[in-house]
Amino acid sequence: MPELRWGPVSHRWVVIAKERARRPDEFPCDAEPTNDPASCPFCPENVARASKEILTLPNATHTGWQTRVVANRYPALQVEGDLEPAGVGVYDRMNGIGAHEVVIETPDHHRSLSELSVAEITTVLTAYKLRLEDLRRDLRLRYVMIFKNYRAAAGATLTHGHTQIIATPVIPVVPQTELHSARDHFLHKERCLFCDIVDQERSSRERLVRETDAFVTYCPYASHQPFEMWLMPRRHQHDFSMLNERDLFDCAGALKDALVRLREALNDPPYNFVLKTAPSPHPRPGRPSDWATIALDYHWHLQIIPRLTRPAGFEWGTGIYINPTPPEVAADYLRRVKTK
Amino acid sequence: MPELRWGPVSHRWVVIAKERARRPDEFPCDAEPTNDPASCPFCPENVARASKEILTLPNATHTGWQTRVVANRYPALQVEGDLEPAGVGVYDRMNGIGAHEVVIETPDHHRSLSELSVAEITTVLTAYKLRLEDLRRDLRLRYVMIFKNYRAAAGATLTHGHTQIIATPVIPVVPQTELHSARDHFLHKERCLFCDIVDQERSSRERLVRETDAFVTYCPYASHQPFEMWLMPRRHQHDFSMLNERDLFDCAGALKDALVRLREALNDPPYNFVLKTAPSPHPRPGRPSDWATIALDYHWHLQIIPRLTRPAGFEWGTGIYINPTPPEVAADYLRRVKTK
Repeated sequence: MPELRWGPVSHRWVVIAKERARRPDEFPCDAEPTNDPASCPFCPENVARASKEILTLPNATHTGWQTRVVANRYPALQVEGDLEPAGVGVYDRMNGIGAHEVVIETPDHHRSLSELSVAEITTVLTAYKLRLEDLRRDLRLRYVMIFKNYRAAAGATLTHGHTQIIATPVIPVVPQTELHSARDHFLHKERCLFCDIVDQERSSRERLVRETDAFVTYCPYASHQPFEMWLMPRRHQHDFSMLNERDLFDCAGALKDALVRLREALNDPPYNFVLKTAPSPHPRPGRPSDWATIALDYHWHLQIIPRLTRPAGFEWGTGIYINPTPPEVAADYLRRVKTK
Repeated sequence: MPELRWGPVSHRWVVIAKERARRPDEFPCDAEPTNDPASCPFCPENVARASKEILTLPNATHTGWQTRVVANRYPALQVEGDLEPAGVGVYDRMNGIGAHEVVIETPDHHRSLSELSVAEITTVLTAYKLRLEDLRRDLRLRYVMIFKNYRAAAGATLTHGHTQIIATPVIPVVPQTELHSARDHFLHKERCLFCDIVDQERSSRERLVRETDAFVTYCPYASHQPFEMWLMPRRHQHDFSMLNERDLFDCAGALKDALVRLREALNDPPYNFVLKTAPSPHPRPGRPSDWATIALDYHWHLQIIPRLTRPAGFEWGTGIYINPTPPEVAADYLRRVKTK
């Protein structure tokens, strides 16, 4: 069983993955991922044997699957068991309860997410939504993080296109900070922080990459990393699970557009994306929680972070990132990409 | 002039380094650093021409220099100018005022910090202390971060042994969290958080790597990264600048020991270290500050972080790290290294 440990200095949780304990000679592990379909656990010939199926969505012609969700074979957190939080002197621990799933985006080993059609990406986003809804039924789980690591330099260990989902029994510190930021802004101004950001970016236009009636894509004013992009619904919507079919299709169009711009402007770079949405609305069993109301002031969005620089000692020690490309410059390059 | 920008969602400052704006074709920049002494700006033949001197400490025989501090040629923050904070709609900015210096640890291009003698490392630590004291006289600067990037994978762009110093006009979020953690602990318990940690680690011993009368080195209970080590004075001392000559020598012995263990256990891995100490004690000009008293509850320490894994989407999105080597296992390997 993995363990969650809480650092009394950093005030953060850490996952200690005991089962896959690595010895000194098992580092570093940043070899390029295997790229052979014959041994790929996500390819149609192998997937049923390799992994436990959770969800399968058919392709347009119903001749096979388009997107498939399976259990991660080496989960960072495990579904079985009880939470059992405990103090250890000055420290705190908790059983590593959670969920760790993989969304296989397409049966085709060689097509990356940016190369899928908008309809296919809509199916991938539908899988995200369905898993989000289902994982929230588990009252032990407080937050669901949906994220993608593309290419080895961004942490991928397999090339076949996939997204990961990890559900945690705590609300992690980064979403917690964002939830509090949005709540504080609302308390002072009676307005959504993110809606205010959308207004400002749409009117200044200098960091805007694309807008439609439904979505905006822009490089954030305080981008931590060069060519960072945030994709956000224009109308206030705190939770990704509220998207209807039409919203999912529009969102897929915005995501494909952003990924194509990134691919063309930066020569298909490694990237991560993270879906930031409201936490699970249910209160902790047996006690009230104010997260459910705080969540209403949030505004879901997708953060796309190309991995072009390497955070080092300064970033680690301070939390302040040094970004060598102003977002206004980045947006200008990204806007000029021909996407059609 | 670089710019500091504040993100209203992340509640963090970011440095936007406008001068060295990188275009899309200037990434990625993780080539191995140049290793030719003839073109090395830190070697004795080149240093006077290449960089503005700030401090020079002589070697033991007074026949040359042992450690030299110079201005960084491509500073992330600049010393000249006024702070000028301003609101930009929903965002905040500030001129990129600060200091960015380089401590050249030794004139010898080929000797890394772990290969220097304890006496030589004492001189390096003396340079840290002198620069810390001097930078604190600048009332615009609120925090001084001393950190090392060793090898390209940890962010170094030059191989010649060096440490960097960046002073910021704000107290960065990571030290701020640690200062608040220590203050909260003290308010509840009338004891120093770090002194309590030292007691617990010395009595449990399972994560202890080394102890002397003056210092302990251990792998923290909630290690974010595999083989992370913290080095801490045993007696309560909130600020690195309080070290006397004897303390500096003891600290140099502990640092050399830790770096040798790391080198031997993990085949000379890339690493970062960061010196976490109290912020500048002076109040902000013209107004009182409670940081000066909060600082007294802190306890300075050095965090050594080998760069063995690659944080990816999950870490970025949540702030929760997945560490595949329990600190008890790491400490066992590190303890077993023969250091003599």
